[in-house]
Amino acid sequence: MRAVVMHAPRDVRVEDVADPVVQKPTDAIIRLAATCICGSDLWPYRGTDEVSEPLRMGHEYCGTVEEVGADVHDIEVGDFVIGSFFASDNTCEICRAGYQTSCIHREVLGTSGGAQAQRMRVPLADGTLVATPGQPDPELIPSLLAASDVLGTGWFGAVAAEAGPGKTVAVIGDGAVGLCAVLAAKQLGAERVIISSRHADRQALARELGATDVLSERGEAFITKVKELTDGLGAHSAVEAVGTHESMHQAIGATRAGGHVGFVGVLHDVAITGEDIFMTHVHLHGGPAPVRRFLPELVQLIWDRKIDPGKVFDLTLPLDGAAEGYQAMDQRRATKVLLTV
Amino acid sequence: MRAVVMHAPRDVRVEDVADPVVQKPTDAIIRLAATCICGSDLWPYRGTDEVSEPLRMGHEYCGTVEEVGADVHDIEVGDFVIGSFFASDNTCEICRAGYQTSCIHREVLGTSGGAQAQRMRVPLADGTLVATPGQPDPELIPSLLAASDVLGTGWFGAVAAEAGPGKTVAVIGDGAVGLCAVLAAKQLGAERVIISSRHADRQALARELGATDVLSERGEAFITKVKELTDGLGAHSAVEAVGTHESMHQAIGATRAGGHVGFVGVLHDVAITGEDIFMTHVHLHGGPAPVRRFLPELVQLIWDRKIDPGKVFDLTLPLDGAAEGYQAMDQRRATKVLLTV
Repeated sequence: MRAVVMHAPRDVRVEDVADPVVQKPTDAIIRLAATCICGSDLWPYRGTDEVSEPLRMGHEYCGTVEEVGADVHDIEVGDFVIGSFFASDNTCEICRAGYQTSCIHREVLGTSGGAQAQRMRVPLADGTLVATPGQPDPELIPSLLAASDVLGTGWFGAVAAEAGPGKTVAVIGDGAVGLCAVLAAKQLGAERVIISSRHADRQALARELGATDVLSERGEAFITKVKELTDGLGAHSAVEAVGTHESMHQAIGATRAGGHVGFVGVLHDVAITGEDIFMTHVHLHGGPAPVRRFLPELVQLIWDRKIDPGKVFDLTLPLDGAAEGYQAMDQRRATKVLLTV
Repeated sequence: MRAVVMHAPRDVRVEDVADPVVQKPTDAIIRLAATCICGSDLWPYRGTDEVSEPLRMGHEYCGTVEEVGADVHDIEVGDFVIGSFFASDNTCEICRAGYQTSCIHREVLGTSGGAQAQRMRVPLADGTLVATPGQPDPELIPSLLAASDVLGTGWFGAVAAEAGPGKTVAVIGDGAVGLCAVLAAKQLGAERVIISSRHADRQALARELGATDVLSERGEAFITKVKELTDGLGAHSAVEAVGTHESMHQAIGATRAGGHVGFVGVLHDVAITGEDIFMTHVHLHGGPAPVRRFLPELVQLIWDRKIDPGKVFDLTLPLDGAAEGYQAMDQRRATKVLLTV
C-alpha cells in the first residue's frame, strides 16, 4: 500500500510499504477514507523535533474496518469508524475519569504505522474506535476526520477552559485547533468568543464558526484589548492552541482571577513561574486531548449536521500529493490539508 | 498601644506605637482578642525577603469592633469579628466569583499597621469582616483566629484540589496550613488523606485531624509511596502547602492524570515546564486563599464545635513575647504561635 514517510526535515515521500496486519487480538485494521496533516507534523518537518530514522507519519483517521482480532467485540468489519491519536482501553480508572490519552494501556498511534496511508492498524480497537450510526455521506467525511484530532482537541481546550453560558472565551491561535476551539466555545454556550488572527481567510472562518470578536493584536496588546472588552477583568476562559512560551503567557494574561486556561498546543520550551500562577489566580489544565471522551457526542453532532468542523480543511490533495501538502502548511498557504485515500 | 515591629532579620521588637484611627469611612478599628505568627512571617525573619525599613507585622486577627466609619453598615461596634489578610469589597465581580483576594479594590492588611498589635485598622470593613453569632467563649478564640488564615488557606487548598467523597488526597507540608488542609479534606468527605511528616507531634495531630496515612517519605520516595497506595495511579488530589520548587513538583508527581493540585504555599523560585503539566494531565489552581469566601461556613463550623483548628497552635505567648515566638517557629520548636493580646 501507499504511505507517507518522512526521511529528514522537508523530505517527505509517499512510498510503497507493507500492508498492516493484526498483531494482537485486540487490533483492528481499517481502510482509510481520508487522513490529514497535523500542525504537530511540522515540528519534525521543520527540524524542531529530530528525525533520526525514516518516520511513518499521521495520526488522524477515519475509515472502514476491514479486519478485527479475535478479542474485538464492539467493532465489526464494515463499520465506519473514527479514533484518536492514542489507543486506549476505555475501561481503566483513568479512562473512566475521561482521560483516555493517559490510559494505563495507551499506545501512541503511528509508531507501528501512521495514518497517512491507505490502511492502518488500530490497537485496543474496542476502546479506541467509535462507529458512526451508518455509512456516512461523502460530504461528512471531512468533519468526521476533523473529530479525530483538531475538533476533539479544540473541544477539550474549551472544556478545560470551562467555556459555557455567560462566559467570555479568548482563543489564542488561529490554526485548525484554535478555530475548532471557537466552534466548541460557541456550542458550549459561550456569550462572547474572542480570537486573535491576522489572516483574512481565518478571520472569516472564525466568525463563521462563532467568534464574536476577531482581534489583530498579539502578546501584551492582545491582553490589553481583551481586558478592555471585559471591564478590565479579563476573559473567564482562555484556550491556548499554539504551544509556545509566548502564547501560554498570552493565555494566562488574558484570563481574569478565578478564570480557567485550557492549553492544548503541544508545549515547547514553556516556563511558568510561581508568580505567573500564584497571584493571577487562574486555573490551568490541558495536555494531549482525551478526544475519545468527546467522540460519541461529536460524531452525533456531525451526523445531525449541527456542526461542520470540516471547514477547517482549506486544501485537499490525494495521498500521493502529501509532500505538496506539507509544503503548503509549512508556508502557511494552507491551514489544514486533507489527504484523500 | 503595643505592636510587633521587625527592624531587620531576626530583630523583632514589641514597641509602643500610635493607636490606629479611622482613615476612610469604610474602615473599622478592632481591639484584638488574639493574633499569631505566620509561616510567611519567617521569610523576612530569615532574610529571604528583604527588610528595608521597620515592618509592622501580622495579618491574622480576630477581635471586637471598637469604632466604625460612617459608611460601615453591616458591622457594628461591639461585634466580635474575623477577617482575612486582604481587605475586599465582597461586591465586585471577582469577589462574587469567590476570589476576594483578587478583589478589584483589595488592600493588603499590615501595610498601614499589622495585626500583631493591640488594635488594628481594617479597610472595607463591611466586605472584609465576618461577625460571629454572639460573643465567643474564650476557648473558641484560637479556632476563630485560625480561620483568619491557616484554616481558610488549608481549606482553599483542599477545595482547589477538589477534595471530596471517594477521593484520595495527598497533603504536602505538615505546617499549620498543611494540617488544616488535612482537616478540610476530611470535612469535605475525602476517603483517604495522606500527609508527609517526620515530626512525632505533627504526625499525631495530623491523625487527630483526619489523616489516614502519615508517611515519612519525601520527594520522589513520597510520590512512589502515594502511587503504591493508589493502584499505581496517584492521588486524586494534592494540596501543596509549602511553596518551594520541590514541594510543588512533589504535589504534581503524586497526582494522577486528570487529578487536581491545589497550591497555597507562597511560591518561591518555582519553575514549571510544559512537560510538568502537559503529559501529566493535572489541574493546577491556587494562590492567596480567598479566605473570605469560606469564612461564614468556617465560623459556623467552629461555633457549632464541629471543627477545632485551634489545635494547630502549640505555643501561646503574650504579645510582648513575640520575639520568643518568632524564634520558636524559626527553630521549628513550635508549629504555630498564638499571641494573646
